[in-house]
Amino acid sequence: MNEVKYALDTFYFLVSGALVMWMAAGFAMLEAGLVRSKNTTEILTKNIALFAIACTMFLLFGYSIMYSSAAGGWLPNFGALLGSEHSVDAVNAGNADHALYSDFFFQVVFVATAMSIVSGAVAERMKLNAFLIFCVLLTGFIYPVEGYWKWGGGFLHELGFQDFAGSAIVHMAGAAAALAGIILLGARKGKYDAKGSAKGIPGANLPMATLGTFILWLGWFGFNGGSQLLISDVENANAVSRIFVNTNASAAGGVIAVFLYTRIVYKKADLTLILNGALAGLVAITAEPLTPTPLVATIIGAAGGVIASLSVTMLDKLQLDDPVGAISVHGAAGIFGVLVVPLTNHGESVSFITQLLGLVVIFSWVFASSFAVWYLLKKLMGIRVSDEEEYVGLDKVDCGLEAYPEFARISSTNGN
Amino acid sequence: MNEVKYALDTFYFLVSGALVMWMAAGFAMLEAGLVRSKNTTEILTKNIALFAIACTMFLLFGYSIMYSSAAGGWLPNFGALLGSEHSVDAVNAGNADHALYSDFFFQVVFVATAMSIVSGAVAERMKLNAFLIFCVLLTGFIYPVEGYWKWGGGFLHELGFQDFAGSAIVHMAGAAAALAGIILLGARKGKYDAKGSAKGIPGANLPMATLGTFILWLGWFGFNGGSQLLISDVENANAVSRIFVNTNASAAGGVIAVFLYTRIVYKKADLTLILNGALAGLVAITAEPLTPTPLVATIIGAAGGVIASLSVTMLDKLQLDDPVGAISVHGAAGIFGVLVVPLTNHGESVSFITQLLGLVVIFSWVFASSFAVWYLLKKLMGIRVSDEEEYVGLDKVDCGLEAYPEFARISSTNGN
Amino acid sequence: MNEVKYALDTFYFLVSGALVMWMAAGFAMLEAGLVRSKNTTEILTKNIALFAIACTMFLLFGYSIMYSSAAGGWLPNFGALLGSEHSVDAVNAGNADHALYSDFFFQVVFVATAMSIVSGAVAERMKLNAFLIFCVLLTGFIYPVEGYWKWGGGFLHELGFQDFAGSAIVHMAGAAAALAGIILLGARKGKYDAKGSAKGIPGANLPMATLGTFILWLGWFGFNGGSQLLISDVENANAVSRIFVNTNASAAGGVIAVFLYTRIVYKKADLTLILNGALAGLVAITAEPLTPTPLVATIIGAAGGVIASLSVTMLDKLQLDDPVGAISVHGAAGIFGVLVVPLTNHGESVSFITQLLGLVVIFSWVFASSFAVWYLLKKLMGIRVSDEEEYVGLDKVDCGLEAYPEFARISSTNGN
Repeated sequence: MNEVKYALDTFYFLVSGALVMWMAAGFAMLEAGLVRSKNTTEILTKNIALFAIACTMFLLFGYSIMYSSAAGGWLPNFGALLGSEHSVDAVNAGNADHALYSDFFFQVVFVATAMSIVSGAVAERMKLNAFLIFCVLLTGFIYPVEGYWKWGGGFLHELGFQDFAGSAIVHMAGAAAALAGIILLGARKGKYDAKGSAKGIPGANLPMATLGTFILWLGWFGFNGGSQLLISDVENANAVSRIFVNTNASAAGGVIAVFLYTRIVYKKADLTLILNGALAGLVAITAEPLTPTPLVATIIGAAGGVIASLSVTMLDKLQLDDPVGAISVHGAAGIFGVLVVPLTNHGESVSFITQLLGLVVIFSWVFASSFAVWYLLKKLMGIRVSDEEEYVGLDKVDCGLEAYPEFARISSTNGN
Repeated sequence: MNEVKYALDTFYFLVSGALVMWMAAGFAMLEAGLVRSKNTTEILTKNIALFAIACTMFLLFGYSIMYSSAAGGWLPNFGALLGSEHSVDAVNAGNADHALYSDFFFQVVFVATAMSIVSGAVAERMKLNAFLIFCVLLTGFIYPVEGYWKWGGGFLHELGFQDFAGSAIVHMAGAAAALAGIILLGARKGKYDAKGSAKGIPGANLPMATLGTFILWLGWFGFNGGSQLLISDVENANAVSRIFVNTNASAAGGVIAVFLYTRIVYKKADLTLILNGALAGLVAITAEPLTPTPLVATIIGAAGGVIASLSVTMLDKLQLDDPVGAISVHGAAGIFGVLVVPLTNHGESVSFITQLLGLVVIFSWVFASSFAVWYLLKKLMGIRVSDEEEYVGLDKVDCGLEAYPEFARISSTNGN
Repeated sequence: MNEVKYALDTFYFLVSGALVMWMAAGFAMLEAGLVRSKNTTEILTKNIALFAIACTMFLLFGYSIMYSSAAGGWLPNFGALLGSEHSVDAVNAGNADHALYSDFFFQVVFVATAMSIVSGAVAERMKLNAFLIFCVLLTGFIYPVEGYWKWGGGFLHELGFQDFAGSAIVHMAGAAAALAGIILLGARKGKYDAKGSAKGIPGANLPMATLGTFILWLGWFGFNGGSQLLISDVENANAVSRIFVNTNASAAGGVIAVFLYTRIVYKKADLTLILNGALAGLVAITAEPLTPTPLVATIIGAAGGVIASLSVTMLDKLQLDDPVGAISVHGAAGIFGVLVVPLTNHGESVSFITQLLGLVVIFSWVFASSFAVWYLLKKLMGIRVSDEEEYVGLDKVDCGLEAYPEFARISSTNGN
């Protein structure tokens, strides 16, 4: 019996991991749809390269840092590669729940998600090489260290910090790294005028962006659903089912709330904000997708969506240019999601203070270490392309290929 | 043992549900590819918004109407939200097959499918707000009521009406609601000339439409495969496998038949019709994907595809303008699928008369109630944009964002 | 217990098969993105039609040729259609692992993969009807025969030839059929100048091509992961997990290696080659995704990626025009993958000579029989469109529909 349970839990982990891997395609399509056509090939290149680098760095360093370090501590361990698998005896003795490699597979696709968030925020003006070097360090060191603090059994875990599938550990962490990057990088030319008011720079391909959002929505069932870790008994099967329903409900709440928000504020149904509303709903529920009722999950998603929309406006006031809204979606909604856990999770005594502490610790670590890396890269090799290159577009500069070489482009006031 | 079976059946339900959810992306891409570029953002907005509304309305009202009403009746019950989950004891006693929430998740994505069908048919001239209000009523009331009549154990179930995964309950229902809508809405400007002959208005992005079709094809394995409801014993595992094979075979039959049909009738391989041929094959087999042999399934799909193609021509003769062919694909092929069940399902005594009765009942209910809602909306707020707005395109009118803002457009004779 | 294992293994087969079916969408998007816009509708039509034909021919002839022929032989059997399913008794007696129909479903999607490879290589100048007639013969006869030689228990299996999920049987076979085709077909007009140097003809839609690559990457988890055939005990669950990790690692290796390769050789990050690098990594690991460590898998993928890139250059030197690089990706990387098996698979005594023999046998059979078919088609009906039709584009010639009818096109030096 243990053998079949082991097999079922392993299969569930692999299916969940495949869904999370699919999110890499979602981010690629979302970002490719939301930037201008002259920067599209470059952002596609970034997205597939970051996924490959993330998988390789997590194999070489990240997984052992995150999961083989001492319980309760904050200093990570630099261990070995993946070892040998669980034996039949170990499984029958009840010492193993699923294949070690299925666990690795599930975890490795999370790393890539964190890095994908950065990709969108620094779009349209960062040097490709600088981005990919940062990617090596985030996925091989910065993320695994804070991941260890909670999921690897480190000190945040001991303190009782709750973050089910990573509103903070994955999403806000990605946003923090992105924020450090765009502060040092500066806004795109033409985004803010002399008076500081922001100009809309619309994405070149909204069907692509919508497709990306649907892919992410689908992938999130693996992201949150798989984070229950087990499915092979009644309690876990019930839990995973509830997580699916709540994850879906929260995304739906985000869509509806932001639809109404944009109808009221802008008199139009702003698709770009609505797509981000869905994603913000998903991010917000990620910290605790199990304990809320579906109705509460819908409301959490709705609130997350509106918060992300407000954050977009606020970042523009601060002239922090995030072309796809990634920091608002993953950062602002992620913080909200973590802070709302004590209201819905009554089973475990989750304290608001501990949640806040966890956010501060993770944000500080990721922001500070990322800032240091971006700063060094800026001094050593530069992180931003020249004004002329930015005008021409990154596709010609870094890739030598246009994304849509045959389609005649309209020259706009946005320097397209 | 019961626990593991419960877990496996729950997991199978969740995976099936995720595949059906993915169909929402399929409809969005299909429709976005088949309309003109000036109406693309709006149809994307509609598709993501209708999915969110469907999920929320089904949570609030639909699920309880559909599944907690009295056996054998026709009056629905307005019950409570999702309750508590099955206990371990209930599972071990054999009183529960899979998690309640996994059942909800699987059912909720079906609702959205029904509504997605409407979206395509009313494209390019309907007001966004009117559409979304209709969506609230269809997903929260109209669909759940007829769903209850069969799947909730109502009077159509008692009569022996057979519709395995919803050729009528989901697909023809969506087509009936759409038909009521386009009758009141009227054709797009320029679709029919003074003599009543139809002009082709080609879709703006056929790769998107093709992607959407492939997504729907994939999602249909969840739609039909999951409708077996169980997989954890030999009989059910065999059944689900056969459903997968037949579903695939029927789609293949639809493609091949419509390819030949367009080659013969139009001398060209008309991709748009071929894509609809695949979908019509899928719709046709949905009423009974288990009992036919794969070869018979291929033939059913082939017939469904040709029927849908003929229906496209017929609707154009009637000047009923359905930009994406949704009524033909889901209505005509759906009716055919339901009527062919008595020929292939020998196990249960399915009568042709009962099948016909079921079709009449479902069509009448959905068409009449939808007509009433559309009519009220037309009187109260209008359902159609002005001629000038239609010329400019819905994207500017309702969304304020173009789908492809950088690509220069060719002005055509179709008012692009 | 046997019943639940049977159900789990069946479900795993169906999920794997659905993922492989999804690869059909991947090939369609990849190829649609890499050809010029004037040939896009045609390649989409080809891709959906070939999938439908492959499924139908394999049902009618292929499956019985491949799996009901005599053990150890080379002459296939032309048997009957799918028979009746395994009984509960057979399962409880341990005589059946999963549903017969789930096995058929998993196998049928492999056939389509082989044929999809051909589609890309002959793009932009072949007649649609000629292609589809070839498709009938490859999927109904040529592929099943060589599939029988190994997977059906024929003489290559007896000899100890190792090809886990089909680097040679599926991928190199597709490439061999494609090579025969393009030799008889000739290069596209304008691809090679008088001196024989190749001109780049960029694809029209790189986001589509990238999406296609991500779809294929995801689908490959089904392709390789499902080829373990069982998952319901500890050993198999561990094996499938390792296959997932190695498949992913190899694709990542291909991306990174080709990224560096193009940066060094061309000074640019060539996205088209990088996408092909991911695919070449996947092809290379397919011959043995189980025994390597993940680090070795990464290296195999990296080598496969570079080999495919070099092959692209070499084919251009030979003026063999393959618009999407399919022969390099599936042929060159496939051969490499098969030959590297003896280095990583120590458990079974796999000999380099046997591997080479298997490659020669499969290549010879598929190349020769395909050449004969293409040759006959060329004599009987012609396989290439006229120069004028090629200039106008296949979409107008064979489909009568443009893929992007509204987008103004830039006339280029490539005859767009």
